Amino acid sequence: MSFDRLVNKIIEKQNPTVAGLDPKLDYIPGYIKDAAFAKYGKTLEGAAEALYEFNKGLIDALYDIVPAVKPQAAYYEMYGWQGVRILERTISYAKQKGMFVVTDGKRNDIGATMQAYTKAHIGTTDICGKDVEAFGADALTVNGYLGTDGIVPLLEVCKEKDKGIFVLVKTSNPSSGELQDRKLDDGLTVYRTMGNMCEDWGKTDIGESGYSCVGAVVGATYPEQLSELRAALPHTFFLVPGYGAQGGGAKDVAGAFDENGLGAIINSSRGIMCAWKKEGCAEQDYAQAARREALRMKEEIVSFIGKIGND
Amino acid sequence: MSFDRLVNKIIEKQNPTVAGLDPKLDYIPGYIKDAAFAKYGKTLEGAAEALYEFNKGLIDALYDIVPAVKPQAAYYEMYGWQGVRILERTISYAKQKGMFVVTDGKRNDIGATMQAYTKAHIGTTDICGKDVEAFGADALTVNGYLGTDGIVPLLEVCKEKDKGIFVLVKTSNPSSGELQDRKLDDGLTVYRTMGNMCEDWGKTDIGESGYSCVGAVVGATYPEQLSELRAALPHTFFLVPGYGAQGGGAKDVAGAFDENGLGAIINSSRGIMCAWKKEGCAEQDYAQAARREALRMKEEIVSFIGKIGND
Repeated sequence: MSFDRLVNKIIEKQNPTVAGLDPKLDYIPGYIKDAAFAKYGKTLEGAAEALYEFNKGLIDALYDIVPAVKPQAAYYEMYGWQGVRILERTISYAKQKGMFVVTDGKRNDIGATMQAYTKAHIGTTDICGKDVEAFGADALTVNGYLGTDGIVPLLEVCKEKDKGIFVLVKTSNPSSGELQDRKLDDGLTVYRTMGNMCEDWGKTDIGESGYSCVGAVVGATYPEQLSELRAALPHTFFLVPGYGAQGGGAKDVAGAFDENGLGAIINSSRGIMCAWKKEGCAEQDYAQAARREALRMKEEIVSFIGKIGND
Repeated sequence: MSFDRLVNKIIEKQNPTVAGLDPKLDYIPGYIKDAAFAKYGKTLEGAAEALYEFNKGLIDALYDIVPAVKPQAAYYEMYGWQGVRILERTISYAKQKGMFVVTDGKRNDIGATMQAYTKAHIGTTDICGKDVEAFGADALTVNGYLGTDGIVPLLEVCKEKDKGIFVLVKTSNPSSGELQDRKLDDGLTVYRTMGNMCEDWGKTDIGESGYSCVGAVVGATYPEQLSELRAALPHTFFLVPGYGAQGGGAKDVAGAFDENGLGAIINSSRGIMCAWKKEGCAEQDYAQAARREALRMKEEIVSFIGKIGND
């Protein structure tokens, strides 16, 4: 039912950024890993425990200044079901702290199966008459290659439970153009066509903010396309990856925002998680280093867009 | 390193089909659910336990006649991390029984993140010097919307560990044409372009069977496109969903095969899992009903393609 909930958190914190929680073991301070391995051994369970402690520290250091987190499913699945259990615990902890949670899963399938993904990630699962939340995120990233019937099950739950989706439109990676930049026979690019589909999927459910429940993923590494899509898709909220470690800067993402400094949320994953390594501070200070980087990033972006919110 | 392993199992069993394991609670006989809920309550854990018992019965009834299973990740995620644990147990059990396991996850992401999905599903995860298998499937379905750098990490592991991928090309759902059937400015459709990318990604690693490690998902519901793609993509092995419950018949999938009856594996999920409901047999007989349907399907398809294998 629109991204109003997220927009309100962004305005409240005057911060249009989201912290990516993609916790590889390499990023985690040694003392956290040592403690987890001492308890569980060098096992998937031990690794998962380290991930959770790392995430918890980050959330504690960020929740009062950053409106949202984006756990990337791949980095949890990499540690087996034990890692996936930690995805659920991370989502639950971030929500407890008042953060908006976007599960970055890029899920996609035919309608009947998409219903199952929808229940899994943003809805509830019926267990013989009892509704249970499996992962319970506020929003999910999805891939629209299969067309409308792979999106409809999500829209129903978005409406009913006030959730959102972000559809891949123009991704941040170097080879995203191979298909996405190709022109169709009507002269529009594939990414623009997918963007238009997002606008269409969201049109019946536009919130007070002016944005629907159907957002788009548009990479910071393609600033021209960001500006083009911002102009073309007035009701589509953008999730913008690629800032920082992937090469996008604050200037590059400025075009993602509307005239009120709304319409987009900029993700940083490695930049925030690995700030302690870049700073060279004590590893025990990793969470505060993440906070310093989050504040620096916020200030840098706000310096380009000004006060956030329409008044 | 090519789909030779799968091809050999298909030839050995003279059966080019794969059983989809998409175990919704609705499909599971009451006595299995009752036992699981008695032990764990109407919880995600209870549901997951019922899923596992159901899958185990199906695998026991099928492994000597069906070469492969395809668990659909969505139906496990729907039951939380507890369901995902059962995905891992199902994969492990099917492999013990000698089956080839395709995890249907339709995963996709940028290179660095795709590395994590690769490790999760077909590779191994490094836990501070110790390599651990997280899910350990033989093949994974993926979505190629992000282009080559989202595929490369998979290819490396396919080569090293003799695994495979199936890239979505032309999906079986009604609205698959919205994007996939659109023509690009060179006159080729999007699905054909994606098909050509598969052929290109696989070209350096073609097995004795003539097929590479890069397969394609092409729906049984679009027989014309199946035949077109079979002719155009000589080294790309097809995973064909949409047979049975989605409406595709044996005649529709005949065009997926090469002149040796190879080059494709046809999936049936609901048809096999819910055979006991369609037959109206005792629920305790569900696994044997699945076997009867698997044999019927095999015979129906083989009647169109003849003996499988080049000799």
